[in-house]
Order: sequence, then structure tokens, then C-alpha cells
Amino acid sequence: MAKVCILGGGSWGIGLSVVLHKNGHEVTVWSAVPAEIQMLQEKHEHKMLPGVKLSEDMIFTTDDKSAIEGKDLLVMAVASSYTRSTAHRISPLVAKGQRIVSVSKGIEEHTLMTQAQIIEDEIPQAQVTVLSGPTHAEEVSRGIPTTIVAGSKSKSCAEYVQNLFMNEVFRVYTSPDVLGIELGGALKNVVALAAGIADGLGYGDNTKAALITRGITEIARLGTAMGGNFETFCGLTGIGDLIVTCASMHSRNRRAGILIGQGKTYEEAMKEVQMVVEGVYSAKAAMELSKKYDVQLPIIEQVNEVLFDGKPADQAVKELMLRDKKLEVSHLPWPEE
Amino acid sequence: MAKVCILGGGSWGIGLSVVLHKNGHEVTVWSAVPAEIQMLQEKHEHKMLPGVKLSEDMIFTTDDKSAIEGKDLLVMAVASSYTRSTAHRISPLVAKGQRIVSVSKGIEEHTLMTQAQIIEDEIPQAQVTVLSGPTHAEEVSRGIPTTIVAGSKSKSCAEYVQNLFMNEVFRVYTSPDVLGIELGGALKNVVALAAGIADGLGYGDNTKAALITRGITEIARLGTAMGGNFETFCGLTGIGDLIVTCASMHSRNRRAGILIGQGKTYEEAMKEVQMVVEGVYSAKAAMELSKKYDVQLPIIEQVNEVLFDGKPADQAVKELMLRDKKLEVSHLPWPEE
Repeated sequence: MAKVCILGGGSWGIGLSVVLHKNGHEVTVWSAVPAEIQMLQEKHEHKMLPGVKLSEDMIFTTDDKSAIEGKDLLVMAVASSYTRSTAHRISPLVAKGQRIVSVSKGIEEHTLMTQAQIIEDEIPQAQVTVLSGPTHAEEVSRGIPTTIVAGSKSKSCAEYVQNLFMNEVFRVYTSPDVLGIELGGALKNVVALAAGIADGLGYGDNTKAALITRGITEIARLGTAMGGNFETFCGLTGIGDLIVTCASMHSRNRRAGILIGQGKTYEEAMKEVQMVVEGVYSAKAAMELSKKYDVQLPIIEQVNEVLFDGKPADQAVKELMLRDKKLEVSHLPWPEE
Repeated sequence: MAKVCILGGGSWGIGLSVVLHKNGHEVTVWSAVPAEIQMLQEKHEHKMLPGVKLSEDMIFTTDDKSAIEGKDLLVMAVASSYTRSTAHRISPLVAKGQRIVSVSKGIEEHTLMTQAQIIEDEIPQAQVTVLSGPTHAEEVSRGIPTTIVAGSKSKSCAEYVQNLFMNEVFRVYTSPDVLGIELGGALKNVVALAAGIADGLGYGDNTKAALITRGITEIARLGTAMGGNFETFCGLTGIGDLIVTCASMHSRNRRAGILIGQGKTYEEAMKEVQMVVEGVYSAKAAMELSKKYDVQLPIIEQVNEVLFDGKPADQAVKELMLRDKKLEVSHLPWPEE
């Protein structure tokens, strides 16, 4: 039995708290937002996960010190835009070698850092692992069979996280490719926007499958140039997560894409979805990365033009279809001729 | 302008005939089934593609000689179980170097040969290309944006097919990896069955994304052992085709899987779907190949046990979730320790 604290009272943190509690661990949930903690203390239920009862012996707190100190594992589950400020805030309380697992996805504007990089930047004394995959919180909290990947440069850290989380409905793989895992998780939202746009234009399954598959090819091209492994982008944290995002109306990125495909601007779409649409920010970050690493990203480029330059979405699809005739995989040799 | 004959009057052959005709080519459709040709001659419409009008200047015929001779390209679009008999029948009429493009998917029982291998076996004088990808005929025939891959060991053959088919709603990539393309197209049906079974059991998007992603990993493991390229399985003809199959109620494999997940036997499911469910045969072929090439296929193995040994489907999912703790990608090194 381990002592674990989830930092962040959103649906994903709570979904993971259910897994950890089921596995017999002592679970604390911390949030900087008093209203969130009050809701959890009073109702033992999260408003985004109706019907999922949280055990009476879970601890909900806004107190930093008691949340962090003495814990075997900290689960960093705040929204990605709060990762740096939260890491900075708790850093003085984190012990040397204390384990942190990051479960958020996103690339920081301007610094272009991933979540784990931000945490290591703010809390250099911690041992950071990441956990990512095709995992709707709504399903994980209800015990629907789910797979996920624990990534760390240290095998023992990855296996520690694997052992804590794994059970008969939650299968955890390990991987040393932290960067590949994090890039796939962050950049898939841009492709989910593209897939949503195609849905909004009234196109079919063929178009969406094409955007998903060529989209992950682009992400892999950029990600391998940055040091990630190609296989990771073809795995659970890459194509797997992208599939789940593009299939589901749970995804705010996909929903925003549908509205944009129907002719709305991204500001109008964000207003209607009533949530931050991460893909809009990741789209910008991806273009910056593509210039920095000199990698072509035709789909992501078109998404940027639709979002920020007012290009009509159907025109963007047409340009993608009529690009130069290409090989599917640029480096495979022809046996004959 | 080229002279093209489509062999086979099914929905996929007709879908492709619409693309070729739109591109300005002279199109003949041949079938061995007189009733099929009569329907096309009289109605200029295929019963599986209602509302898609076939041009008056398309030729529909059951005559082998006039169909084959003098054509620049033959499109082999019969159901995979008829590929050998059709190839054998037309072989004496095929000229040396005449081009054939195979658009069917499947592995022949006992010989374990792919479609192109069967055609090359029966018609050694032909130049064979394959064409495969995430392509519902229903969408292609209505001009929905679609991508596909032309594969040939000869670059000029692949590019010839690319040039004939490509237009602003039908984007054709080229590839030298014929074997990888064909194995992905044939084996994806087994994973589609598994995904359908998960749907039938009432599991969610997380479970389906896991089966799709780990399923393509298995297919790639077998396919690379047989000589295919890993990237191909992560591309349009591998994961792309699998995504489209698992997302759609058009897929008889997925529909049969749902019924099996709900507790029906595969014979009952096939009866209810009222069509041949290729995945059932491919599941057997895949197990034979896994033994021949000594490759582990845990998902496909469980599908076989559910189909042929009466194992309850939920038990199969449980065994998959609780297998040994694994690395996601077996050969990546750990930077630390």
C-alpha cells in the first residue's frame, strides 16, 4: 500500500483516484480551488463524473503541506496551463527523490516545453514519470477496460507507477520514451480539430481516417526529429489517444472542430464549447516547432490557416488532396527500377 | 485517356469505376454473373450504391475476350474467394506486360497467399499493382474526400496507377511495400471482429482504442517478420483501414463481432449479418502464420478461442488485461539504470 496525493480536482485526477483507491492505496486529493474540495468533501462525487461514488476514506484538502509531505507518489493532474504555477508552488515541499507522475498533456507557449520538462524545471529534486494513453475519465472511473503507458527514463520509476496503477481493468505498459509520449499527447489535439472540421463539413469516415492517419504521420515526423521514437507515435499514447479523441463527443477539440467546419470562427467555437480548446494553442506551438526543426506539417499548417487566417475549411481540404503526388513513406526503396 | 476494365460487379469495383470515369477514362465493367451485368445495363445503378448514377457510356459485359483484350489496365475487384478462379479463367487472354491492379483483400486458406501473389501465380505474364486504404465504396462513389495507396515493386507501375486514379477528392500515394499493404488489409478484419466484440460487451471507447492500437501492433509484428515494413502498418493501408472498419456499421466484420460480444456463436452471427465475414477466415490464417513465423499474437489468439473454442468473450478480455506486465515497445533501451 502506498500513500498517494492527486494534485488537481478535475475529472481525470478523480478518475485516477478511483483506480488507486480500488488498488488499496491511501488516496489524498488536493486542489488549490476551495469550492472544488468542498464539493468533493460534501458529495463524495465529482460533477463531471455523476454516479461515481468516492470512498469515505479518501482525503480532500487544500492544504499544501499535508498533501505533499510523506507521500510515496504525487500525481500532477492540474490543467496543463496550471502545471508550472502548481509545480513552482509545491516545489519547496517536495523531498529529494520524491516521485511525481504527470498525467496532463500540452506544450507550454513560448518555452515549447512539455509537462514533464516543466515539472523537472520547477522541481529538479523530484523523479518524474508520465502516464498517458487512450483514457476517457468517464470510462476509467466506471471500470471500463483501459490501457495506458507509464513513461520514464528510469525503468524502476516506470515500473513503480505500473505496479501502483495496474489492475484487471487498467492495463499499464512501460516505456522509456518520455518525449514521444508527451509530444503525441499534446499534438493529437490539433489533428482532432482537423477531424472535427471534416465532420463539420459533412465528409465521411474515409476523410476522417485519412486525416487521423496522415495526421499521426506528421506528428511522428516532427516528434522523431525532436528525439521521440517512431513506434511510440504508432502506439497507445499516439494513434491510440488520437483515435479515442476523434471518436468521441467527450472531446472538446473535436466538438470545436465540428463547429469550425460548419463555418464558425475559433473564437465562436470556443465560446459555444465553453471550455479551453487546447488544440488551438497546440496548433500554434506545432508550427513554431515545425520551423525550429525544419519539418513539413501540411495538415497542421492548414489547421492554422483555417483558425487564424480565415481560410475556408473546404478550401483547406482541397489543397491537402491536391498536393504533389507523394510516396506514402518517403524513405522506402523500390526493389525494381 | 486509358482503356480500363473492372473485373467484378460488386460495390467496390463500381465505386472505382466512378472515379475512373470521372477522370476521363474509357470504362468497361465485367462480371461472370449475368444478373449483375443485366442490372447495371438496365438501371445504370448498383443496388448497394443507391443514387449513384453510372454514365451511359460505360460498357457492362460478361464477355471475357472483349473485356480483357486491348485494355491498358485491368482492375481485379472480385470477392477475394473468387480471385484465383477469375485469374485462372482470364489468364490466357492477358497479354505479356499487361497491367493489373488488385483491389481485393484477403489471405487464401491453406496456401496463405495474398491477392497479388495469387494473381502473379495464375497470370505470371502480367504486371501486378495493389490499391488499398480506408475506402468505403459508399463514400468514394459519392465523391467524399478519400486517400489510398498504390503499391508495386516497380515505381513506374505504382505511378501509372496513381496517375489514372488521382483527382481532387481521391488522393493516391505510392509505395513499394506490396506485402505490407496486403497483410494489413487482410488481417485488419480480425481486429475489427475484436473491436466489435468489445462493443457487444458494452465496453467503451477506451477499450476499443486499446484493441485497435495493440491489434495493429500485433499485425505489424507478424507482418514485419514476413517482410513487410513497419511504417506501412502505421499508414493508410494498416491503421487507417482498421480505423475506418472499426468506426463503421458498414463493416460486416464489426457487426458480426458485436453479435458475438452479445453472446451469439460465429455461425449465428454470420447468419444474421447475411454475408461472408472474412475476419473469421483471416483469424485462422493469422494463427497459422503466427506459428510459421513464431510471432505472438495475443489479441488474435483470443479471437480464435472465442470463435472456435467457445471461450466467453468477457473472459478473453480479462485475460488480455491481466497478461504479464509489458513494455509497450519491446526493443527501446532505458537511458537510466
